[in-house]
Amino acid sequence: MIKHGHGGDLKAFSKEIKCEINEVIDLSSNINFLQPKLDIDFNSLDISAYPNYDDLYKAIAKNYQIDIEQIELFNGATTAIYSLFRELNLDHCTLYAPCYMEYQKSAELYGYTIEYINRFENINTHPKENSLIIFVNPSTPDGKFYPIEEMIPIWRKKGCTILIDESFLDFTPFESATKYLDYPKLYILKSMTKFYSSAGIRVGAIISNQKSIKRLQKSEPLWKISQFDSAYLQSALRDKNFVEKSQTINNAYRGYLLEMLKKSNLIENIYPSSANFVMVKLKDIDAKTFQEKLIPHKIMIRNCANFDFLDENFIRIAIKDITSLRLLENIL
Amino acid sequence: MIKHGHGGDLKAFSKEIKCEINEVIDLSSNINFLQPKLDIDFNSLDISAYPNYDDLYKAIAKNYQIDIEQIELFNGATTAIYSLFRELNLDHCTLYAPCYMEYQKSAELYGYTIEYINRFENINTHPKENSLIIFVNPSTPDGKFYPIEEMIPIWRKKGCTILIDESFLDFTPFESATKYLDYPKLYILKSMTKFYSSAGIRVGAIISNQKSIKRLQKSEPLWKISQFDSAYLQSALRDKNFVEKSQTINNAYRGYLLEMLKKSNLIENIYPSSANFVMVKLKDIDAKTFQEKLIPHKIMIRNCANFDFLDENFIRIAIKDITSLRLLENIL
Repeated sequence: MIKHGHGGDLKAFSKEIKCEINEVIDLSSNINFLQPKLDIDFNSLDISAYPNYDDLYKAIAKNYQIDIEQIELFNGATTAIYSLFRELNLDHCTLYAPCYMEYQKSAELYGYTIEYINRFENINTHPKENSLIIFVNPSTPDGKFYPIEEMIPIWRKKGCTILIDESFLDFTPFESATKYLDYPKLYILKSMTKFYSSAGIRVGAIISNQKSIKRLQKSEPLWKISQFDSAYLQSALRDKNFVEKSQTINNAYRGYLLEMLKKSNLIENIYPSSANFVMVKLKDIDAKTFQEKLIPHKIMIRNCANFDFLDENFIRIAIKDITSLRLLENIL
Repeated sequence: MIKHGHGGDLKAFSKEIKCEINEVIDLSSNINFLQPKLDIDFNSLDISAYPNYDDLYKAIAKNYQIDIEQIELFNGATTAIYSLFRELNLDHCTLYAPCYMEYQKSAELYGYTIEYINRFENINTHPKENSLIIFVNPSTPDGKFYPIEEMIPIWRKKGCTILIDESFLDFTPFESATKYLDYPKLYILKSMTKFYSSAGIRVGAIISNQKSIKRLQKSEPLWKISQFDSAYLQSALRDKNFVEKSQTINNAYRGYLLEMLKKSNLIENIYPSSANFVMVKLKDIDAKTFQEKLIPHKIMIRNCANFDFLDENFIRIAIKDITSLRLLENIL
């Protein structure tokens, strides 16, 4: 029985199917399979001194074309989410679901009442006044990018605080919500580690106006990001071709994956995606049975049954190298 | 004017005195100047996957001779302190001061009223009932180790929650407070990064009984520690000679530093220390003037004026290599 709360737990999977970790073909985790070219030697980093984050903040601000004072870094997007829910200290939140499950956990932990809006069916439902809007764009687990031009004024009119999670936006050619930063209650989350292929490092950014960022900083410790992680990310951001290369190749391989899926008679519906993964609804087979079918091939995919508004018929497949995708093709 | 809230901000200091960072002789930060022998190649670590902390927990549990279920890791001791104050959610805390300043900040942030007990003058003052006791052992900024055998029963009788910060205990031959873990309201903090000479990595541990640890874990994100940091610490813990070597050499050099200080006519009082730093009270010169005297030699020391119960006459000098200490000797 393969059941994990999230994708990418290679160790548990390999143990379960009795193989080595490096034999697993991981189509479950939404990490960019391309890696940036690094220009540093991690072995020669001096990590004995206390870290100084000035250069990291500068590099990230430049990358997203914002001011340093508009960012606060956290050790990972999940930590950022927890801090934001805690510090905003609001009563109610609206999750455009399905979405990343830590949002629900965080909302419950900090005593928010939750309204779920089904993105697939009722996206135009108006949220409650003063609610904290959680909108992941491109969304998970399907990867759809939503133009939010028409939603922003509705949310603003209702006095909502808005969190746009853009952890997968770098995979797309679309514009960031940073253009709406004139609205003081807007927060934008960038996970950094998905696109820069580094789930093992822990850096996430919240972008907002200077005043809101100052408020968040009040309860943040002096040091929180590893100097290794800081060095990795700065080096990754120096790889000037990486954004274009990642978008082009992920796009092309998504096309390849979509063709495969269209031909398969195990698939009922393919959801549109601009990200590095594709969600499908299975036909005549449930996600668990499909996962078991993949075990002899050591392929790991994401069962979406534990997402809101989805059930045991939905799976997510990550875009990886062509060799891995071809292996899947033979099974479909 | 040299004024920093904490030691070790090399970048700001070097900028201020107009020299390169690597020219600074840092006697301000309390990081072990000896580094463990590492047996890994950081460049070959695969950091694309989500981290799994099982091996790190195992290594730390083994090192401190406790169970895995008795630890929760945080990305740094300061983060651990903030989380603990927040999750305990008590009304009152008792700081045995002077102590690490983030304790006061954290207490204020989470609405605790604070009683300060002057360790130097009134250590036997009984704290308020049900207070959160903060006791750093060995203490900062002086490095004194206190036998707490007689204090523990008093604190317990008063129903206090107890935090013993043992971030510098590894420098000493003394026993850990882990032997009192039968008391369910005892928490022990291990910073890890001081002794293992790695302020640039972010790992700190809270040790308590299983139930209290489970409670802390409830509000912790899935991933929070960098895989680089995890690999560093596991490798450092494999260096079997490091503990003995660090204790022996830091001890010997502390002896050398004490001899220097005793001969100087700028020193009024030297405080006993078991840690890798020594606090002194200056004579006929204040800390700022003394710091300025050191600038031409590019030496940085810690002005203790912003610690409770200390004033502009106190400085802390870290134990570093003999060459650095000799440079200081010429000025004393």
